[in-house]
Amino acid sequence: MNLLTNPIQLLQPGTVEFGPGTIDKLGPWAKAKGYQRIFVISGAFNANRVSKLHLGGEIGLFGSVKPEPDADNLADAVAAAARFSPDLIIGFGGGSAMDIAKLVAVLCNGHQSLSDIVGPDKVTGRRIGLAQIPTTAGTGSEVGTRALVTDPATQNKWAVQSQFLLADIAIIDPDLTMSIPASITAETGVDALAHCVEAYTSVKAHPIMDVFALEGIRLIGKYLAAAVQNGNDGEARAGLALASMYGGICLGPVNTAGGHAVAYPLGTRHHISHGAANAVIFPHVLAYNAPYAEHKTAAVLRALGLDSSPKSENVSRQAYRYCEALGIEMRLLNRNVPESDLENMAREAFAIKRLIDNNPRPLSHDAILQIYRAAY
Amino acid sequence: MNLLTNPIQLLQPGTVEFGPGTIDKLGPWAKAKGYQRIFVISGAFNANRVSKLHLGGEIGLFGSVKPEPDADNLADAVAAAARFSPDLIIGFGGGSAMDIAKLVAVLCNGHQSLSDIVGPDKVTGRRIGLAQIPTTAGTGSEVGTRALVTDPATQNKWAVQSQFLLADIAIIDPDLTMSIPASITAETGVDALAHCVEAYTSVKAHPIMDVFALEGIRLIGKYLAAAVQNGNDGEARAGLALASMYGGICLGPVNTAGGHAVAYPLGTRHHISHGAANAVIFPHVLAYNAPYAEHKTAAVLRALGLDSSPKSENVSRQAYRYCEALGIEMRLLNRNVPESDLENMAREAFAIKRLIDNNPRPLSHDAILQIYRAAY
Repeated sequence: MNLLTNPIQLLQPGTVEFGPGTIDKLGPWAKAKGYQRIFVISGAFNANRVSKLHLGGEIGLFGSVKPEPDADNLADAVAAAARFSPDLIIGFGGGSAMDIAKLVAVLCNGHQSLSDIVGPDKVTGRRIGLAQIPTTAGTGSEVGTRALVTDPATQNKWAVQSQFLLADIAIIDPDLTMSIPASITAETGVDALAHCVEAYTSVKAHPIMDVFALEGIRLIGKYLAAAVQNGNDGEARAGLALASMYGGICLGPVNTAGGHAVAYPLGTRHHISHGAANAVIFPHVLAYNAPYAEHKTAAVLRALGLDSSPKSENVSRQAYRYCEALGIEMRLLNRNVPESDLENMAREAFAIKRLIDNNPRPLSHDAILQIYRAAY
Repeated sequence: MNLLTNPIQLLQPGTVEFGPGTIDKLGPWAKAKGYQRIFVISGAFNANRVSKLHLGGEIGLFGSVKPEPDADNLADAVAAAARFSPDLIIGFGGGSAMDIAKLVAVLCNGHQSLSDIVGPDKVTGRRIGLAQIPTTAGTGSEVGTRALVTDPATQNKWAVQSQFLLADIAIIDPDLTMSIPASITAETGVDALAHCVEAYTSVKAHPIMDVFALEGIRLIGKYLAAAVQNGNDGEARAGLALASMYGGICLGPVNTAGGHAVAYPLGTRHHISHGAANAVIFPHVLAYNAPYAEHKTAAVLRALGLDSSPKSENVSRQAYRYCEALGIEMRLLNRNVPESDLENMAREAFAIKRLIDNNPRPLSHDAILQIYRAAY
């Protein structure tokens, strides 16, 4: 674990507008900056409510971002943006739309291709503006420097990381999340929770990020169940939007760890949503890590309002019940994952070294398989 | 007090480098950005160690920033910068140097004058880069959007606030604060504490800022006495630098309140340093406010590691002893303030409406006078 004396770089959008109604700040901001040709990137649902952005000027739209988008989907978005020739890109949606918006913003002028920029710090620059408007509370992508896209051949995730992927402005208006159904609220909420918990217990954890992480966990503990019960609870929606932002802040200098690595194959191989995959895995990884992060595991449970004994059995039971009570289907068996694929999944997860190496307790292929079996 | 559902704008430098040795990031950053003509703004002490910045290219220097600088001092700095015609301004010092650097960065091209920009949001733009390198841990000016300068005629403070005063990068290297003597360490530390406490108990307090404020208070409680005792304690210096940054973050959307208003006349009329002035006033304002902010006052004392009963008498005694134990001279009498001037000081403090109005308990002219008498 890092100490306060370990140097850290904090990257954030220069401006973050947070709170109900802040979506109305987008138009005046774009106007003040002199943007004339605005290109919005979203999935199908948000494509139908672009009018909520109240934008003037000439507007283009790529409204076909898919969940867990692959490189082909990205290529279509880049081509559409290149034809429009925007001076401002707006990501409007969940993590998928915002990640594609980041990549389009640096690729649409044609100076680099996706293969040029995969990895850390390969992007050479960004000449057009980038604004991010999250409509879910989970990924925290709006404040992040990373974008993930799926390799269509192998279904692996490519990760691009660069300061140039960071938005000029993030507008986090929790009212935009009111329409999210209870099940997605629960799953994306646990995704935000997983970001905070994995960063907090990571071998790369840093005291500055711990403050954000623990506050994010507290907000999830306070507000997630309330928002699942009543999607129109404005305070709960605001609390979750903030927790998601804190999780996103943690992803920058610390990133996730074993939990996300173990969750990825559920998405890439079995089309389980990113949030649900993280939820199913969450209790088992938390329990697996507990003996190597006793104090912090107890703090996580306490922040969630749960019995905080860090014994593995209690950790697993508490976290499992917490997720189950949110209405999340927690068994892989009931999510149409064939037991025969667990081996392949473990192999695939184990290969995601960039995250596995962050885990507080070493994660072998066999340990991952045990986690899948426990979740089965 | 605001709720989580109250909209808030979070402005921060896009990049913050934090930690020992991060000063070495300045040169490569300036080079990557293509800056050719770099102009450093500092006081006399830091003017003698500009070599620590390891800058290439053509370097200009205005090394004569005074403590509590006035408009004449600013005009000299603007003129020197205008002659040099820089593309990057670096503020290198405490709050005085960094505030002057902010103003020079927006004034040196001659499009606006100081009188054009006093107040909120009057600055029309900034065409050159701005980097801030704090060498004290107190003001948090490196992450802020505000600059103060003294009116030489009236000795009042003019406040300029603008997003264009926000640095492109802040490099917070606590090693630069190692050489600060114990007395200045103590006073500037209490200044950072006052920023956090006043923002935390302000009528404009916001839950998002409360997290930073409370963490800043905890860091002061944990590290200030240690750094006063041993100036070479690297962890303590890092903790104070972070607390100062948190205080600076709080100043943006929330700002200070009665404490700073009551402290200002000590500086403007009696040349008591900003940190010392805040320290002398701190226990008395905290105690005065306690009945109107019981819960938060108790939390402040707890975060400082003190007995947390929020009864005014205890609050005043605890906070007074805390400051006294840091070696700060806490009596106005012993600081050469004539008792006959307390009336004038109270009139002057009461006129600083922009801060007085933020106070959790209404502050009349008489109440301010009582505070000065208690501090006498």
